[in-house]
Amino acid sequence: MSKMMHYDLSRLETKQPVKGALVRFVHSDNMTMAYWQFEPGVDLPEHSHPHEQISNIMGGSFELTIDGETLELEAGSVVIIPPNAVHSGRARTGCYVIDVFHPVREDYR
Amino acid sequence: MSKMMHYDLSRLETKQPVKGALVRFVHSDNMTMAYWQFEPGVDLPEHSHPHEQISNIMGGSFELTIDGETLELEAGSVVIIPPNAVHSGRARTGCYVIDVFHPVREDYR
Repeated sequence: MSKMMHYDLSRLETKQPVKGALVRFVHSDNMTMAYWQFEPGVDLPEHSHPHEQISNIMGGSFELTIDGETLELEAGSVVIIPPNAVHSGRARTGCYVIDVFHPVREDYR
Repeated sequence: MSKMMHYDLSRLETKQPVKGALVRFVHSDNMTMAYWQFEPGVDLPEHSHPHEQISNIMGGSFELTIDGETLELEAGSVVIIPPNAVHSGRARTGCYVIDVFHPVREDYR
């Protein structure tokens, strides 16, 4: 890529990899951003990936379990999930979450 | 690092590298996140860095100039700034902006 790109999130395609979990993606050369809107009660099953992840809770109440430790997160919470850590999530309310990954999530393209 | 880290943004130290530009940082092994609050009228002078950057306008009206091209940005705008691109910014209103960088901004630690 290596050129400037400008997106309007509201115009990006929305995907729904899990029922009630709507997401839009932006990929740069080295990072993927994921903008999630979760309906209340949505469960994200345990998974892991070799990518480093930073999760930003922008709104709502989100439960995140990483390698067996459960965090109760609210707006303003930022969590670094190391590569290959097993994690799962649950939206206790409607939530807006922004994740960043390095390197690019090729599986999300 | 390679371990889980959990931050509450409101408890992180606030820096003010430019008058009227308050920022909090979170660093992982491979990325730096910068959470900016700009007062109206703040100018960020031209600069560049070898890091790839993704800027997310969360609120307000922000003018971003990259390699001579000026973008008028609002909430929901996402811009990829390539490595070494010369860029400058201006907060037309109070703004909340989240930047992500790869690799880590060692100069921001």
